[in-house]
Amino acid sequence: MPRLVDHDAKRREILEVTWRLMATRGADAATMREIAREAGYANGALAYYFANKETLIEAAFVYVFDRTNDRIREATEGLRGLAALRAFLVEVLPTTETTRLEARIVLPFWSRTVADERFAELNDAAMRQWRHELGDLLRQGREDGDVTVTTPDDVLVEQLLAMAMGLQVLATTHGAPTPATTQLAMLDAYLTGLAGR
Amino acid sequence: MPRLVDHDAKRREILEVTWRLMATRGADAATMREIAREAGYANGALAYYFANKETLIEAAFVYVFDRTNDRIREATEGLRGLAALRAFLVEVLPTTETTRLEARIVLPFWSRTVADERFAELNDAAMRQWRHELGDLLRQGREDGDVTVTTPDDVLVEQLLAMAMGLQVLATTHGAPTPATTQLAMLDAYLTGLAGR
Repeated sequence: MPRLVDHDAKRREILEVTWRLMATRGADAATMREIAREAGYANGALAYYFANKETLIEAAFVYVFDRTNDRIREATEGLRGLAALRAFLVEVLPTTETTRLEARIVLPFWSRTVADERFAELNDAAMRQWRHELGDLLRQGREDGDVTVTTPDDVLVEQLLAMAMGLQVLATTHGAPTPATTQLAMLDAYLTGLAGR
Repeated sequence: MPRLVDHDAKRREILEVTWRLMATRGADAATMREIAREAGYANGALAYYFANKETLIEAAFVYVFDRTNDRIREATEGLRGLAALRAFLVEVLPTTETTRLEARIVLPFWSRTVADERFAELNDAAMRQWRHELGDLLRQGREDGDVTVTTPDDVLVEQLLAMAMGLQVLATTHGAPTPATTQLAMLDAYLTGLAGR
């Protein structure tokens, strides 16, 4: 039986418009009215999918995180250890137009975690997942002999995660964003250092 | 001639109340009315010092950044190179109750840089200042023979800054904040690595 309306596709379409508006205009500046207009919906039709702005914003954040993870899965397919670690982090660093836009939606997301328990939990879950995945890749790196530093893995994971999260800010500022070449040099210098004492 | 009212002291008093309210309740949740009440002012008297909430919020951010820099100056006094670098970063990492609170005000600050040119410029200026200072300390470290890695200094500065900024997020989340001991282990492992190839 064919579905007359593909609700999942419509939902994704709205989220795609929403996160881009939030990233370019600011999370608070984009109104439901604007989002509806950009997505080609009447205000009421948008409300069919998302009851209010908070629900929509939350779904947009989850959407962006899921997109990033889809890219990570693709980029790391068939890789392991240090090579997979590099491919993983390249998808997170704001080196391209898309990942820079994504960083601009991550900042208001973090801001909301301060006072909003739901956003705090979403962020915790995301970080937990990445810590787990980065930890697995580091362990593979040790098996392969590419990671030999005596620094414990949980400290290395936190260093990698902090570098990637810090760049969401440093590469997003208008004035002197960290250039893509510098970001990749940071990553490669770090990974080279893993094969130290 | 004695001043009947020490306006600078009153201004600082209001900013002290303001940033703590913003850090605990969220930057948007704290209203001018609440801030006035906590500071022991009538609404109108608060407006004498800060015309509106945006002006107050901006001043609160500058106040927190200045306080951090005061602490850095104190902590690094008489030190140079790697020792000064460590003391500098310890004041920025969210390892204490105060620095964790400061991180909770940094997140909404960053969020505002996305859509607000004034906040973006404030953030750029702050990062420019820290890049400059961290660069100076790294150069001293090279002179002292404590920094021998071949990675260029501008890449090292960016790694240090990204680690410190990333921890503002990772150590602030409710669920699994990066413990202070792990943060210091991250910093020390990084600094040890500077004396590598």
